[in-house]
Amino acid sequence: MVKIANFADARNWDQFHTPKNLAMALAGEVGELVAEFQWLKPEESSLSSMSKEKLRQIELEIADVTIYLFRLADKLGVDIAEVVRDKIEINEKRFPAI
Amino acid sequence: MVKIANFADARNWDQFHTPKNLAMALAGEVGELVAEFQWLKPEESSLSSMSKEKLRQIELEIADVTIYLFRLADKLGVDIAEVVRDKIEINEKRFPAI
Amino acid sequence: MVKIANFADARNWDQFHTPKNLAMALAGEVGELVAEFQWLKPEESSLSSMSKEKLRQIELEIADVTIYLFRLADKLGVDIAEVVRDKIEINEKRFPAI
Amino acid sequence: MVKIANFADARNWDQFHTPKNLAMALAGEVGELVAEFQWLKPEESSLSSMSKEKLRQIELEIADVTIYLFRLADKLGVDIAEVVRDKIEINEKRFPAI
Repeated sequence: MVKIANFADARNWDQFHTPKNLAMALAGEVGELVAEFQWLKPEESSLSSMSKEKLRQIELEIADVTIYLFRLADKLGVDIAEVVRDKIEINEKRFPAI
Repeated sequence: MVKIANFADARNWDQFHTPKNLAMALAGEVGELVAEFQWLKPEESSLSSMSKEKLRQIELEIADVTIYLFRLADKLGVDIAEVVRDKIEINEKRFPAI
Repeated sequence: MVKIANFADARNWDQFHTPKNLAMALAGEVGELVAEFQWLKPEESSLSSMSKEKLRQIELEIADVTIYLFRLADKLGVDIAEVVRDKIEINEKRFPAI
Repeated sequence: MVKIANFADARNWDQFHTPKNLAMALAGEVGELVAEFQWLKPEESSLSSMSKEKLRQIELEIADVTIYLFRLADKLGVDIAEVVRDKIEINEKRFPAI
């Protein structure tokens, strides 16, 4: 998180990084990630049937998504680990285990 | 990550969680997150001008995005911390600091 | 297109409908449309295997996407039919028929 | 619509164009469209303050989105004009004019 913030500061990009803009950037990156999977059959999208190059491409898209997601959370003072715990608890009540 | 996997297993949802499907679920959740910001002016999207209720809503959407992102990474054996480090290094070369 | 513009004007929503905001609203609606398909097997997503209720739900999401897409094009003075023709021509050169 | 279908058929792409896959492709293209607007101030996103090159880029992204949207509707037998009329009627009841 610190590294991501430093990277933006060193480039004077902080002025662009409003939460609104970061949410858009996140959507853009998720679009690129989804595009990696769009023509694959479900079974072709698994780890075992994916080429090394394809997997690397997907890894880098996952990294881009994570960077903007963490940056957005940081800007809004959101503790991701905590809200994920909260959300799983909510989901456990909404969808009881079988 | 373990908690997320357990949650899916306990509900027999693993069969649906192909990487392809998880990428779609991630896109769906990011759509909900973006929608939270769509009519806000940039300055209204900052932490200081946001109501507690709005922030809570956004936090829960961030949690949903994170859950599917981590689940996708897990299914593909991707070490998120490592690829984020890799990607920041790549970005540092592509966009040298001012 | 006229109907969509009238609808927004009658509600004094024009102030919110900057191209930037409309692009976000479009992304939000596409997120909802994608979510309709996320757990379906490819063959379950075809017209013949879809329930009437599911299809109706998808139709209404397609309508939402179209409304924001046309509104965005309208605001930017974009002639959709013309740019689609342009783009197909570009694609025909990039991907020659077999 | 006919032109779009012909284009896919001539390339033997029909096999990839399940509604599920087309919804993903649509999400990918909307991601690219949103990315065009992500760092703009709302007022910079208007027609009057946009460069010709930027506008052209956006036009081509709008075309890509439209192509997949129409293709998806076509595959599901959805009459877009009709469902847009339906949806505007529903919205008029949900959000009465001021």
